[in-house]
Amino acid sequence: MDRQPKPEFFHILRTQQFDRAILDELCDLTTAIRKFAKTREGLNYLRGLLAHKRAMLYFTQPSTRTFLSFNNACQILGIQTSEIRDASTSSEVKGESLLDSLRTFSSYVDVVVMRTKEEGLAESAAELFDHIKRRVPIVNAGSGRDQHPTQALLDIYTLERSFKEMGGIDGKTIGMMGDLRRGRTVRSLCYLMKNYRNMRLVFIAPEQFQMEDDIKIHLQHHGVEFHETKDLNSALPELDAIYITRIQDEYDKSGESKGVDLGKFKFGTEHLKMMKPHGVIMHPLPRREEIHTDVDIDPRAKYWRQERNGMWMRVAIFVKQFKMDHLIMHGHLLD
Amino acid sequence: MDRQPKPEFFHILRTQQFDRAILDELCDLTTAIRKFAKTREGLNYLRGLLAHKRAMLYFTQPSTRTFLSFNNACQILGIQTSEIRDASTSSEVKGESLLDSLRTFSSYVDVVVMRTKEEGLAESAAELFDHIKRRVPIVNAGSGRDQHPTQALLDIYTLERSFKEMGGIDGKTIGMMGDLRRGRTVRSLCYLMKNYRNMRLVFIAPEQFQMEDDIKIHLQHHGVEFHETKDLNSALPELDAIYITRIQDEYDKSGESKGVDLGKFKFGTEHLKMMKPHGVIMHPLPRREEIHTDVDIDPRAKYWRQERNGMWMRVAIFVKQFKMDHLIMHGHLLD
Amino acid sequence: MDRQPKPEFFHILRTQQFDRAILDELCDLTTAIRKFAKTREGLNYLRGLLAHKRAMLYFTQPSTRTFLSFNNACQILGIQTSEIRDASTSSEVKGESLLDSLRTFSSYVDVVVMRTKEEGLAESAAELFDHIKRRVPIVNAGSGRDQHPTQALLDIYTLERSFKEMGGIDGKTIGMMGDLRRGRTVRSLCYLMKNYRNMRLVFIAPEQFQMEDDIKIHLQHHGVEFHETKDLNSALPELDAIYITRIQDEYDKSGESKGVDLGKFKFGTEHLKMMKPHGVIMHPLPRREEIHTDVDIDPRAKYWRQERNGMWMRVAIFVKQFKMDHLIMHGHLLD
Repeated sequence: MDRQPKPEFFHILRTQQFDRAILDELCDLTTAIRKFAKTREGLNYLRGLLAHKRAMLYFTQPSTRTFLSFNNACQILGIQTSEIRDASTSSEVKGESLLDSLRTFSSYVDVVVMRTKEEGLAESAAELFDHIKRRVPIVNAGSGRDQHPTQALLDIYTLERSFKEMGGIDGKTIGMMGDLRRGRTVRSLCYLMKNYRNMRLVFIAPEQFQMEDDIKIHLQHHGVEFHETKDLNSALPELDAIYITRIQDEYDKSGESKGVDLGKFKFGTEHLKMMKPHGVIMHPLPRREEIHTDVDIDPRAKYWRQERNGMWMRVAIFVKQFKMDHLIMHGHLLD
Repeated sequence: MDRQPKPEFFHILRTQQFDRAILDELCDLTTAIRKFAKTREGLNYLRGLLAHKRAMLYFTQPSTRTFLSFNNACQILGIQTSEIRDASTSSEVKGESLLDSLRTFSSYVDVVVMRTKEEGLAESAAELFDHIKRRVPIVNAGSGRDQHPTQALLDIYTLERSFKEMGGIDGKTIGMMGDLRRGRTVRSLCYLMKNYRNMRLVFIAPEQFQMEDDIKIHLQHHGVEFHETKDLNSALPELDAIYITRIQDEYDKSGESKGVDLGKFKFGTEHLKMMKPHGVIMHPLPRREEIHTDVDIDPRAKYWRQERNGMWMRVAIFVKQFKMDHLIMHGHLLD
Repeated sequence: MDRQPKPEFFHILRTQQFDRAILDELCDLTTAIRKFAKTREGLNYLRGLLAHKRAMLYFTQPSTRTFLSFNNACQILGIQTSEIRDASTSSEVKGESLLDSLRTFSSYVDVVVMRTKEEGLAESAAELFDHIKRRVPIVNAGSGRDQHPTQALLDIYTLERSFKEMGGIDGKTIGMMGDLRRGRTVRSLCYLMKNYRNMRLVFIAPEQFQMEDDIKIHLQHHGVEFHETKDLNSALPELDAIYITRIQDEYDKSGESKGVDLGKFKFGTEHLKMMKPHGVIMHPLPRREEIHTDVDIDPRAKYWRQERNGMWMRVAIFVKQFKMDHLIMHGHLLD
C-alpha cells in the first residue's frame, strides 16, 4: 500500500478524493506550519514561501468566515489575492459566459478558490482548465448543499488533535446533530470516515433533517457503523465527539424549517455533565441557538479552535498544492 | 514623573487614554517614520517591519478617507488586511451574533480596526478579547458621534509640527468652528487639551451646534480656558489655529440642520488677511462649503498636510502597538 | 532622431501620446519581464521591484477584466493597492467634490489608475496633480467611449509578437469588425497606426456602427490607408489580422442596437479557412456571440493570449513609469 502512488493533490474538488495517507500527511503538515508561526522569523519565512503566486477568491455564495479563512491563509504564505464576491458585478453584465470568465481568471492567477451556490461548478472549472492546458488548480470552498472538502479536512484535523493522547480518531464514536440533510459539512465529514478504523456515527436530528440516503449507502458500503436517533440525552454519554450544525434554512424552498421543533436539538450547559470528560464539542460556525454561549468556556468546547485550525489547514493545502511541503517538513528555515 | 510606568498602549479606544508623555512620543515617532519614508531603502525597511502581522479593517460606517488612511498605513508596514465594509454582507445574514463575528476576526488576525456608527462597540470588542484572552488589540477608528481617537492624535501632530518654531502647542489659542455639538473630531481634540499648558479654546458655532456640556465640564475641571461666540471675524485675529468642521447632518433626526443659517461659519479668502501670519487652518475633511477652495494655496492652509499626517500617525500607532518603536527611534536600518 | 528627448512617460492619458520609439521600447520591456516571470527567483525579484509603491485603483465604471489585469500587474511588482469601485460608496456621500476626492488619493498613494464612464476625467486628475505639484502619475484605464490607451498598447504588443517572424507590424493589413463607432479599443488602436509604415485598415461594420469621422480624418491626415465594407467574407482573405469587437450597447440611448442585423458580423469556424495561414484573430474580450467558442482552439485565435499580454504590458507600464526599466533590460537579477 505504501508503495502505491499517492492520489494527485492538484484540484481539491470532493472530499472523496482523500485517502488516509493524505489525511495524515496534511495533519502533520498543519502542525508543522503552526510551529513556524510561533516566531516572527518563522512567519516571515512562511510569507516568502509562495510570494510568487497569486490567487483568485471567487466567492459568489456569501461567506464571511470561509472567505476570511482563505484570505488570511493566502496572506500567511505571501500569496496575493484578487476577489469576486458578487457575480452580478462581474463581466457577466456585459454578457460574458461563465466559462469565459473562469478562463480569464486562469490568465491572471495561479490558483482559483471557488465558493458557489451551484453544485458542480468547481468541477466544471477544473475540467475547463485541464482541457485548455492551464496548470491552475481549483480549490472547492463549498459548492451548494453537496461538498465542502476543506471544511472536512479541518474537522479531521481538529478531531485528530483532540484525540492525540487517546490514539487518534480510530475507534471513536462521533455524534452529528442538526440539519444533517442539507449540511454539507457533516455530509463531507461522513465521506472521510471510511479512512478510519472502527468508527461509529450517531445521527441526531429531527426526521425531516436526517441524513440522506446517499450518505447512508456510502457508509454501509464501506462498513462504517451508524445509527439514527432523535434523543440527544440518551446518545450523549457514549459520544467521544459531538458535531453540531445549524439549520440551513437558506436552502428552504417554502419555509419548511419553520415547521420543525428544534428545541430538543440544542446543546446547553445541562448537557456538559452528560459528556465524557475528554469529549469534544464541535461546530462549523456560524452558530445561532444550537450551542449556548455559556458552553464556550468549557475546555471540551473546541469550535473556536476548530475555526483557527481551518486557517492553518488551508495554509497546509496551498503548501502541498504547490509542492512546498518538503521545505516545511524538513523543519529548517531554508531559502 | 519620568519613572512612572507609561499607560499601556494596547487597545486604542478613547482619546482620554493619552497623556502628554505618549503624545510627545507618538509625535517624535511619526516624524522619525517619515524620515525613513524618504528613501526606497527606508520604505522597504518599513514594509518588512510588521510583515508578519495581519489586520481586520471592520468599517461598517462608510468612510473612504479614514479607510484609505488605515489601509495605506498597514501597507507601509507590510501588515496584510482583510476588510468588512458592509455589515449586511457578513455572516450576520446567517444569524450570527456580533460578538461571535468579532471573535472570529480574533481567530484570524493580529489587530482589529473598527469604525462603527454605534458608540461603544470598540470598547465591547476590547472587553471580549480581554475576557477570552486573545491578545488582539482594537483600534477605534471612529465610533458614533463620540470618539475618534486616532483623528485627535493626527490633529495634535499637525498642530505640533505647525508650531514647531513657536514653542509647540503650549500657550496657543485654538478656534473650533462648525458643528461642534456632533463633530467627534473637535470633541476628541478637546479631551487632549488638558495635556498642554495655558491653552485657550474659542468655540465658533451657531447656538444649535455649540459644544456640548460634557466637554465644557471636562475643560473646566482641568482648567482649560474656553469661550463661545457666533462671530468668526472678531475671534479670528487672536487665533493661532482655526479648526473648521462640516455640519454632521448624517446624525440629523428630522432635518434640524436645514433650519440653521451657516453663512457666517464659512472661511473664505477674505478671512486670510485677518489671520496671524503664522496661523494654521485645519479641517478633518471631507469639506463641503466651509472652506473655499481658493484658500487651499495659502501656506497657512494645512488640511491637506493634516490628511497625509493622518496616514503617518496611524503608521506610528501600529509601530508602537506592536512594540517596534525602538527599531525606528534608534534610526538604524536594522533587521 | 535618436538624440531627441523621448516624450515624457509620466501620465498615461491618451493613445496619441505614444510614438514609435516608446512603442518598441514597451514591447521589448514586456518581453523581458515575461522572461523574468518564468522562474520563482525572477518572480520574487519583480515582486520586490516596486514594493515601496502604493496604487489606487479607481474603477467607477464596472470592469472585472481590466481591474483584475491591473490588480495582478500591481501584485507582480509588489505594488500594494487600494480600490474604489463604486463612486456612490465614496466620500461623495458626505458632499465632497470629486477633485477633493482625487486630491485625497494623491495624499496616500504613488499612482492612480482610473476607469470612468466620463470622458476626460483622467486628464482633469492629471492637471490637478500637476497644479498642486503632487508627483503622482495617472493611468487612464478607460474613459467613456473615447480612450483606452493601455488596451491599445497591449494590442500593439500582441500584433508585434504575432508578426515577429514576418517583419513586425509594418506593412500589414488589419481588419476591425463590430461596433467601431463606440468601441474605444478599436478607436485607440487606430491612433497608433500612424507609427507603422504602409498600414492598411479595413473597417467591417453595419452602417450604423461604422468608424466615426474624427478617426477617419486622423488616418487621412497621417496617410494611413483604410476602406469600409459590410462584407466580412470578401475582406477576410486579404487580412493579416482581424480585430473583432462586441456591440457596446451600454452606450445605447434608446435601444438603437436592437434594430441592427448583426448576423453578418460574427466569426465562426467557417471563416477560418478563408484566413491566411498566419493570420491573427483578436478580441478585447468579453465576447458574446461575435466569435464562436469553437474558434478558440485554432492557433490563429490570439485573444486569450492577448488578455494575458495585457497584464504583462501593464507591468511594463508601471516599470517604465517608475523608471525601473533599466533594471529589467540589463537582464541581471540586481538589487
